[in-house]
Amino acid sequence: MGTRDRILDAAEQAIHEFGIAGATTKRIAQQAACSEALLYKHFGNKEEIVLAVLLERSPALGPALAKLRRSVGQGDPAANLVEFTGKALEFYTRAAAVAGGVLGDPPLMAGFRAMLAKADLGPHLPIQALAEILRAEQQAGRVEAGLDADAAASLLMGACFHRANLTHFVDLPDDDATWSATIVRTLLRR
Amino acid sequence: MGTRDRILDAAEQAIHEFGIAGATTKRIAQQAACSEALLYKHFGNKEEIVLAVLLERSPALGPALAKLRRSVGQGDPAANLVEFTGKALEFYTRAAAVAGGVLGDPPLMAGFRAMLAKADLGPHLPIQALAEILRAEQQAGRVEAGLDADAAASLLMGACFHRANLTHFVDLPDDDATWSATIVRTLLRR
Repeated sequence: MGTRDRILDAAEQAIHEFGIAGATTKRIAQQAACSEALLYKHFGNKEEIVLAVLLERSPALGPALAKLRRSVGQGDPAANLVEFTGKALEFYTRAAAVAGGVLGDPPLMAGFRAMLAKADLGPHLPIQALAEILRAEQQAGRVEAGLDADAAASLLMGACFHRANLTHFVDLPDDDATWSATIVRTLLRR
Repeated sequence: MGTRDRILDAAEQAIHEFGIAGATTKRIAQQAACSEALLYKHFGNKEEIVLAVLLERSPALGPALAKLRRSVGQGDPAANLVEFTGKALEFYTRAAAVAGGVLGDPPLMAGFRAMLAKADLGPHLPIQALAEILRAEQQAGRVEAGLDADAAASLLMGACFHRANLTHFVDLPDDDATWSATIVRTLLRR
């Protein structure tokens, strides 16, 4: 395993254990068995490490979106969306603590926000990707033509993101599978 | 101003400036011009201070829900919901950094979760309150009877919570008022 991967493993572990604020570059380097100088050869700053953990170490939302896109015109559109909803819940549940930690750390957040803007990245992009897929299903006549695809995508991704956060704070009474099916049925009126 | 209020002011300011992890009880006590011993006479631990900041210092979601409840059967139900959506966005935007900071701090989070469970509190309760209001509007014949009120409440609160978080990370292209109106119209199909 290369140094970069060792650093990301160590960072992921340190964030999980100590939170973003407690996952210092010193601690990450120590855990990765490398010097801080070597760590800084691979990553310009802590923000970059955190972004790499979010992009490379989360169960991927990108593949789930790609699968949903490939399913346009195939199978039952509601069932496809329910499957995607489950994946989105998993992704956000795992990403929540890292994203929350960034948000709760004003100095880190400022750097992170600037980095996202420069790289044209951001947590709003999955909503746009989902809206595109819903529009494709509308063109295929499989989703109600009058539905506002952008608003529907905001509602669905938002519900997943919120629920993922809630599960960290409280035990929810209903199970994810039942919830996902009801959410999609309510959104699509099916 | 009493000591308790001074401590909460100081805590709010310290969290805003240094994040949850950086807002130590030492720093809060210093800023409130009281001893740490006196701080601990008012609050058992840092979790309790954070909960009090969230419950007492956020622009209130409770009053917005109460107002929406009072409006059942009166005016246009969609317009009432759009107004509530704006308030929910404000609330979550302000609460996001504190909630994120708790979520991103595993030791603090464990204590916070236990405290919520004991007090029977939690960030899922506004969804239940909104669902009750939607059911009341359904009984009054003002919202589509077939709509699943719980799912609709999850979708609306989730979209607000998500958008509030997104605004911390990126500049969103659309304005809040337009977004709120479209979200409610899409959810209610009006």
